[in-house]
Amino acid sequence: MSPLLRNPQLDGKPPVPLLVVISGPSGVGKDSVLMRMRELAFPFHFVVTATSRPIRPGEIDGYDYHFVSVERFEQMIRDDELLEWAKVYGQYKGIPKSEVRQAMASGRDVLLRINVDGAATIKRLAPEAVFIFLAPASTEELRRRLTVRRTESPEEIERRLAMASQEMEQVQHFDYVVINREDRLDEAVGQIRAIIIAEKQRVFPRQVRL
Amino acid sequence: MSPLLRNPQLDGKPPVPLLVVISGPSGVGKDSVLMRMRELAFPFHFVVTATSRPIRPGEIDGYDYHFVSVERFEQMIRDDELLEWAKVYGQYKGIPKSEVRQAMASGRDVLLRINVDGAATIKRLAPEAVFIFLAPASTEELRRRLTVRRTESPEEIERRLAMASQEMEQVQHFDYVVINREDRLDEAVGQIRAIIIAEKQRVFPRQVRL
Repeated sequence: MSPLLRNPQLDGKPPVPLLVVISGPSGVGKDSVLMRMRELAFPFHFVVTATSRPIRPGEIDGYDYHFVSVERFEQMIRDDELLEWAKVYGQYKGIPKSEVRQAMASGRDVLLRINVDGAATIKRLAPEAVFIFLAPASTEELRRRLTVRRTESPEEIERRLAMASQEMEQVQHFDYVVINREDRLDEAVGQIRAIIIAEKQRVFPRQVRL
Repeated sequence: MSPLLRNPQLDGKPPVPLLVVISGPSGVGKDSVLMRMRELAFPFHFVVTATSRPIRPGEIDGYDYHFVSVERFEQMIRDDELLEWAKVYGQYKGIPKSEVRQAMASGRDVLLRINVDGAATIKRLAPEAVFIFLAPASTEELRRRLTVRRTESPEEIERRLAMASQEMEQVQHFDYVVINREDRLDEAVGQIRAIIIAEKQRVFPRQVRL
């Protein structure tokens, strides 16, 4: 175990930067939450995930995701360029190592959006990260959200809902749970913000070494 | 060990009420912070301490403290009416049991302001409480604060400063530290608010049984 770091603010120094992992079932609104946090200009470094899935309307390459071809993604796997990767619903998603290194070097808090399986991997690699589980208020809300998105077929929506109920069990491995209620995005964002502020005030803050 | 309670918000229920202990050296501004939190109408139940010290200008009996005579306080000790008490700087201070019971029954978060020794006692009685240490930005600020207050003699101020540097060592037994910087009261209050919000989002919230 690494020696505990006393909060540097006690010595008039800036707080320790955190690694904050935001996860949750598919369709729960991880992207909306992060988009809102970026709109509000929260001072953090956002880790951009690489994906082989097609770009959705309104998404920006290099901002929302790094959109790459299947061939390029498989090359990144072979070249060991990914901290973590998975093939979910037939699409690759992964965290480029270069992204995380840049983020950690920035001195700002680092936010990482990842699916539930990916979060388990990050927990093994960086147990000192702050793990936040974004949960839907109900299965009905999750269904509505996936339906409105119109990017999945009805069969795929049912598959994701079944998966979501399994993923909900994983909440026990997270530090915090934030409910993302329909039409109350800012409440969820405010709670995430509070968690980040609170974690910085720990007498012994969690310091990630990656 | 009590069984862990899964966050009731996951089942659409209201969050668990917290017991929040705010402590720190004499003169650090515990009273100012709490006064500001009450002004901002934070929805919490505030535990009013009983004290034998004289009322200061602007203070209200039953709101800031229960101001009682030395005789009455000693009667409360004999009748076992106090959860915790101490004689500090020649004055009695203590937490009436009736106050805490009322507070816990209210269903709201309970805030308790107490000196550093008292916090140690509460930690033995209620380890699941949230312990926040309010710290000065520097010894100079603490000296200025005690001087401006004009309620202590120069000798007493020096005595309190010496005591404060000992009390600062106790920060390691607390969960969080909040620096109360001169002219930045709302920053400290905002951090305390964030801590309370974050603690409610824990997957397994801390549930106090007193």
